[in-house]
Amino acid sequence: MPLTDDQLAEIEAARATPQPTLRAVAPGMEQHLYKAVPVLDHGFVRVIDYMGDDAAIVQAARVSYGAGTKKTRDDSGLIRYLMRHWHSTPFEMCEIKLHVKLPVFVARQWIRHRTANVNEYSARYSILDREFYIPEPDALAAQSTVNNQGRGEVLQGEEAARVLEILKSDAGRAYNNYEAMLSQDGQQGLARELARMNLPANIYTQWYWKVDLHNLFHFLRLRADEHAQYEIRVYAQAIADMVKDWVPAAYGAFEDYRMGGVALSAKGVEVLKRRLAGEDVTQENSGMSKGEWREFVEVFG
Amino acid sequence: MPLTDDQLAEIEAARATPQPTLRAVAPGMEQHLYKAVPVLDHGFVRVIDYMGDDAAIVQAARVSYGAGTKKTRDDSGLIRYLMRHWHSTPFEMCEIKLHVKLPVFVARQWIRHRTANVNEYSARYSILDREFYIPEPDALAAQSTVNNQGRGEVLQGEEAARVLEILKSDAGRAYNNYEAMLSQDGQQGLARELARMNLPANIYTQWYWKVDLHNLFHFLRLRADEHAQYEIRVYAQAIADMVKDWVPAAYGAFEDYRMGGVALSAKGVEVLKRRLAGEDVTQENSGMSKGEWREFVEVFG
Amino acid sequence: MPLTDDQLAEIEAARATPQPTLRAVAPGMEQHLYKAVPVLDHGFVRVIDYMGDDAAIVQAARVSYGAGTKKTRDDSGLIRYLMRHWHSTPFEMCEIKLHVKLPVFVARQWIRHRTANVNEYSARYSILDREFYIPEPDALAAQSTVNNQGRGEVLQGEEAARVLEILKSDAGRAYNNYEAMLSQDGQQGLARELARMNLPANIYTQWYWKVDLHNLFHFLRLRADEHAQYEIRVYAQAIADMVKDWVPAAYGAFEDYRMGGVALSAKGVEVLKRRLAGEDVTQENSGMSKGEWREFVEVFG
Amino acid sequence: MPLTDDQLAEIEAARATPQPTLRAVAPGMEQHLYKAVPVLDHGFVRVIDYMGDDAAIVQAARVSYGAGTKKTRDDSGLIRYLMRHWHSTPFEMCEIKLHVKLPVFVARQWIRHRTANVNEYSARYSILDREFYIPEPDALAAQSTVNNQGRGEVLQGEEAARVLEILKSDAGRAYNNYEAMLSQDGQQGLARELARMNLPANIYTQWYWKVDLHNLFHFLRLRADEHAQYEIRVYAQAIADMVKDWVPAAYGAFEDYRMGGVALSAKGVEVLKRRLAGEDVTQENSGMSKGEWREFVEVFG
Repeated sequence: MPLTDDQLAEIEAARATPQPTLRAVAPGMEQHLYKAVPVLDHGFVRVIDYMGDDAAIVQAARVSYGAGTKKTRDDSGLIRYLMRHWHSTPFEMCEIKLHVKLPVFVARQWIRHRTANVNEYSARYSILDREFYIPEPDALAAQSTVNNQGRGEVLQGEEAARVLEILKSDAGRAYNNYEAMLSQDGQQGLARELARMNLPANIYTQWYWKVDLHNLFHFLRLRADEHAQYEIRVYAQAIADMVKDWVPAAYGAFEDYRMGGVALSAKGVEVLKRRLAGEDVTQENSGMSKGEWREFVEVFG
Repeated sequence: MPLTDDQLAEIEAARATPQPTLRAVAPGMEQHLYKAVPVLDHGFVRVIDYMGDDAAIVQAARVSYGAGTKKTRDDSGLIRYLMRHWHSTPFEMCEIKLHVKLPVFVARQWIRHRTANVNEYSARYSILDREFYIPEPDALAAQSTVNNQGRGEVLQGEEAARVLEILKSDAGRAYNNYEAMLSQDGQQGLARELARMNLPANIYTQWYWKVDLHNLFHFLRLRADEHAQYEIRVYAQAIADMVKDWVPAAYGAFEDYRMGGVALSAKGVEVLKRRLAGEDVTQENSGMSKGEWREFVEVFG
Repeated sequence: MPLTDDQLAEIEAARATPQPTLRAVAPGMEQHLYKAVPVLDHGFVRVIDYMGDDAAIVQAARVSYGAGTKKTRDDSGLIRYLMRHWHSTPFEMCEIKLHVKLPVFVARQWIRHRTANVNEYSARYSILDREFYIPEPDALAAQSTVNNQGRGEVLQGEEAARVLEILKSDAGRAYNNYEAMLSQDGQQGLARELARMNLPANIYTQWYWKVDLHNLFHFLRLRADEHAQYEIRVYAQAIADMVKDWVPAAYGAFEDYRMGGVALSAKGVEVLKRRLAGEDVTQENSGMSKGEWREFVEVFG
Repeated sequence: MPLTDDQLAEIEAARATPQPTLRAVAPGMEQHLYKAVPVLDHGFVRVIDYMGDDAAIVQAARVSYGAGTKKTRDDSGLIRYLMRHWHSTPFEMCEIKLHVKLPVFVARQWIRHRTANVNEYSARYSILDREFYIPEPDALAAQSTVNNQGRGEVLQGEEAARVLEILKSDAGRAYNNYEAMLSQDGQQGLARELARMNLPANIYTQWYWKVDLHNLFHFLRLRADEHAQYEIRVYAQAIADMVKDWVPAAYGAFEDYRMGGVALSAKGVEVLKRRLAGEDVTQENSGMSKGEWREFVEVFG
């Protein structure tokens, strides 16, 4: 259960008091504000604030005085043009601020995206809650046999049960001992900044994360991708669903040109031209390595 | 005259239609939105959008669910603490977007602040307006005789007149020739991306500039400082006046700890301790170079 | 003539004294060090320093203790894999420092690449040289009639002559007046930081520019591209020639996957699949706009 | 024991083969290259590569053709001037690449410094070693009673023994279970990217970390400071010792102006002036809060 009743009450209170503003307002995003979208067993993502909308992208691209054109169709066409030609700066003119609760091992991947602002809950200053990520049975997968950096089939039967038992009992014991070391009852109590080292990487942390739309798209392209680890992918997907409501034209262009797009190498272009000309191209005469060829064939057959 | 009637009408229209939002609203900033504050002879700064307020800094510092504490005094104390101890990330949780019209030589200094988002009016794509910065008489200063990188006394009489005449006539001729080269009347017309090279650095350009509050404070500390070139300093000061209304607690801390503060070296600390203990310290026995000593004495006598 | 005899002598002196180092050495880059490659009429690019080589990319990707594998072929395969899968961080482990002399309007485009370190010659502090970019006849092009942001056919005859005459005489007059305003002969002399505003955008400036290989590749992809303005493209190409000698495996992967590659949209993938299946796809039934279709057909016919 | 014999042999091999280079060479840094400086119980820092030296800072500040001035004293004076006046870009012209082995909870603090390049050992791809940070007795401290974010007195007797016992046995059990879950002996074997979540934050990871000198100084100012957590401070100090040998003039300026320096607020300046004028200033009439006053008095008595 990610949120307590008090927290839910705070969120309701925040949503109950609209105020007038002269800034650009994205109605699709207002409906999401402050609400916590559950992710994994104890995590969530919620939008705390946003700046800009589709029109703001157009306005910046044109360095115009007003708020973009009047015609939505023109704005959308320009946004697609900008995306297609890698004009990234207009997309940087939109900004989003999220509050995220996530396991530490997910946070460690996430933080590698450096062009963002972050404030994380401090385990030097505060005591972490007893909340650990324990995978659902269908997320409990074996090491992939073809990809060193991925997972394969779902674990079955006793092995799955054993793993879950280990994850739960090790987390529980680590947290009990964390509390025991911190306790000032009849002892001095270990410093928080030291005691936290006993906690495993599936404990939940939380942070405020603020990022511009261009860098968010980059994050989504890598992390909502099917090759991303499942546990970060579900966060990326939850965010993508919000972005779609926030900047529908920009998100549409992103889906077409980035998420659904394919980066062809010079060799790939050449092979396609030869195949379009009727030639039967094989890996051997493609100039590609086996790995490249396999990935190419996955797309084009 | 920085804005045309059409542009003023667009601004008025944008200001006439407040909309409800659930986001944090800073009333002090709403009054500035879209309005153009004149800077130099043809320039301006105007706020296009903002994200966050003083409470948002506190909220992020605490990674809290609600909107900071209820007590303004506590928020302000925490903000001062964060500023004093160089905890910069909570200040990054506020963001501002400005539309700025400025001479090219000012833009060239400004852009050196890299942690910001920029969309500049494109002189490859569009034709620049005939607007050049011509200094007011009291800004027309001689080269400093003590500082290689600064200006000294105001130019007088014929020399001042000569300089103004040169600046005006060279700008006018350059622009006439820019137009003549671009013209497609009876000729092909030079490409815009080439013709622009004939324009001097006092021509005005404009851009959308978006930055977080921490990096904006860094910009203001360097550019609102008395050692900054006058022509960028007036922009920094115009922005500072807006920031003061936007995040009064953060701006107050910034003024006390950064703008009005002094960075003492280890040697400076030592000298002050010796003087507090009654010793009469001289440059010779201070360990400081002459330059350091001069700057030290300027502050402490 | 970009370099004086004194400067050439300094460069020769720097090249005359190899010193022993334990760092990774890239022989292909050592031959370029300090030498100025002429670009445009007065510009140049020269390598001042570099860090890393192809093996350093592999070493970082593996977080290994030694210097990559022994086999060049394996290193090259891994580098291609990293490039193909957008693993950008290992490429960031190589760094290059350049000294560049370039016209101001080129510098203004260049600086938009923010993830780099820059020290520019200061016209507040120093006096600029009398050197202006005057295009060669075959670079003197008309505004494009199909692309608002590009150039079309080369100017001919009298129009070309007129343009060259304007560029030369305006630059000459602007510089004469720059000197006249600065002069302290019988007058106070205008501050350098003000006098510079009279100089047009084709005057040359220079800077030290330091960037990691990943961000350099990004720069090259955008600026060595045929859609980039000619005057920055020639710099990008001069740099690309050095990079090829520095990190041949990484450069080869970059050429194949980025420079020679094509980013297909989801719609483009779909069209190609339909065409491979024998269907005759038209713009109307492709789902693409006219602009997208035109760009698609340029590649695949 | 941080390094195996094989690893030591690799390091010796790398150190055995100096090669000629035309680049700037810092003899003080050459002696450190590749050697692992032990930090904590299993960690280390070692320099893998560097770019530039003190002269390179001067060279970039002057955008000069040669290698700085001939006189070391002049270079040092300029470097001190640059540091004093916050001219940070010349310091960015030096770069360092480190290989660091460090506990995960230290890595989590470290990574918050975003302006750096990082390649971390991947626990999705590889299996982590059985190495955990267990504090030395004198680093095993109680929670501070005055600072929520710090540690107080060293734990004594039975409490200390209990904590050490917990840390060791929990780490050991977690690692045993990590291995058990990964094992493919009679079972499928859990994916590495999942199994790692059972490991506590005192397990060691390692990375390549590359940063410019300006940002490194910023890191050192915050992390070599006495308020930093001990476990990251010892890394910062080990790095500082190398930097001192690499760029002695820049490091000297950094020590004087940053590490040993004090940032006075406007109020602090005022109080010092009043005290220098003979006034007896108290917290009450200082305008400072109690916290500010306490910190002020710690420095100036």
